[in-house]
Amino acid sequence: MFYLIGLGLGDATDITVKGLEVVKNAKRVYLEAYTSILTDGKEKLEEFYGREVILADRDMVEQQSEELFRDADKEDIAFLVVGDPFGATTHSDLVIRAKQSGVQYRVIHNASILNAVGCCGLQLYTFGEVVSIVFWMDTWKPDSYYDKIASNCHRGLHTLCLLDIKVKEQSIENLMRGRKIYEPPRYMRVREAASQLLEILDKKKSEGVEIAFTENTICVGLSRVGADNQKIVSGTLRELSETDLGEPLHSLVIAGHMHPLEIDMLREFAVDPTTFDKYSEAHCVG
Amino acid sequence: MFYLIGLGLGDATDITVKGLEVVKNAKRVYLEAYTSILTDGKEKLEEFYGREVILADRDMVEQQSEELFRDADKEDIAFLVVGDPFGATTHSDLVIRAKQSGVQYRVIHNASILNAVGCCGLQLYTFGEVVSIVFWMDTWKPDSYYDKIASNCHRGLHTLCLLDIKVKEQSIENLMRGRKIYEPPRYMRVREAASQLLEILDKKKSEGVEIAFTENTICVGLSRVGADNQKIVSGTLRELSETDLGEPLHSLVIAGHMHPLEIDMLREFAVDPTTFDKYSEAHCVG
Repeated sequence: MFYLIGLGLGDATDITVKGLEVVKNAKRVYLEAYTSILTDGKEKLEEFYGREVILADRDMVEQQSEELFRDADKEDIAFLVVGDPFGATTHSDLVIRAKQSGVQYRVIHNASILNAVGCCGLQLYTFGEVVSIVFWMDTWKPDSYYDKIASNCHRGLHTLCLLDIKVKEQSIENLMRGRKIYEPPRYMRVREAASQLLEILDKKKSEGVEIAFTENTICVGLSRVGADNQKIVSGTLRELSETDLGEPLHSLVIAGHMHPLEIDMLREFAVDPTTFDKYSEAHCVG
Repeated sequence: MFYLIGLGLGDATDITVKGLEVVKNAKRVYLEAYTSILTDGKEKLEEFYGREVILADRDMVEQQSEELFRDADKEDIAFLVVGDPFGATTHSDLVIRAKQSGVQYRVIHNASILNAVGCCGLQLYTFGEVVSIVFWMDTWKPDSYYDKIASNCHRGLHTLCLLDIKVKEQSIENLMRGRKIYEPPRYMRVREAASQLLEILDKKKSEGVEIAFTENTICVGLSRVGADNQKIVSGTLRELSETDLGEPLHSLVIAGHMHPLEIDMLREFAVDPTTFDKYSEAHCVG
């Protein structure tokens, strides 16, 4: 059996009892290491499981699935994914290939940021479509996620923004020269994402577009959700562009209409309660 | 410390290692018993934890929080919630009251249907707003969720429909007479939800409204996600209104635009691959 096991968010102990049981008895244990991270790395996981863990990078998962599936007809293979196996990224493709190879699979679910974001007090059923904010490069500054956020704002819905992760990326020079030298991993911070959004707002305004949210729109920054040192702050988009939330992973929420209960809860995390009170009023319904 | 601990979906072993540790050492352990259920009941949980578990109904959580919080300044109290503590329902209100009472709290996250629904192969970042489908009564047939589904459909987004749960409800007669006699729990099935949607479509058509989806729209029915006997089926809305998915809990998804990979995966669960191929084409983009 090929097991896709969610590790949840936080540290090694956020695995489920059911998941840990499989890990302890599996023939091989892989850790998918390119779409998210825990506060604990490979070594800590190995210590906690009492098992060797094999890092699986994108190449391995996408190109060498026959190696992942080897003996899965006779033995249990564990494939670990931070969050939920079908969370922010999808491993549907792997599942389809497993089926095509005649390999049976099972999923052991866990928390992902898509539901854990509820810890900030915004209600999950008033979130709209999720967006991904990617790192800008000198010559490539995509802003198509603005339209999705705008569409959510118009409907009064909150938007969860997943922030970019660059793991095992090559510089253009190394790529061109075919050198397998990788850049250090990069994780987008809330501060950077908020700054990009402010820049997009300026651009839209200069183009005469009526903007769907402003620098004073209430947002929430979250870092290391589920870990002991998680951080949640609320404030205006401008404030969040100036707030340091420490180590990754970070996520950003742009608030839509808010119920008074949501405002009460979010206020507890305000960078500055005075600006929060001033600008949260505009979000209030009911 | 007051711990809100997600139990995930499925059975007792879907709790996280971190959560189980707290449960084993807490002074008192409450189980929130009115917004969702596991396949394991109170007795099985007690056996697995080796602890007494106190059922907390809505009255207790909403009216008697001082009892829940008693000694939480000195001891650990565990409050267990099926899924994630901030999943389908919100316990923000409880958290705000904890803060007001000077009680510190922590959240131990877990899977909820909001992210676990990804197991059907539809990508989580192309879901729109979640809707709740409620039981109709003879004289009260709300259909306001139709507009939300329609709005998601127009944007090409999938819609997760959470299906109604009635626990500890009184009949109108018992309510009027002040008798604390409760009806047996009721859990809406996919079949019923699909039938209600068909009825709403008929009504809209008879009113001359241009409908956003039809009886041939591809939908997904899921039951007992995370449990050993989970079931996933895909088919038209009409087909799902005629499909039995067994014991609760059930959820229903109305598919929006689909990537070919989503269609490939969903096809694996088709009630009837022929109708699936016929009607999934209309959903295809890319």
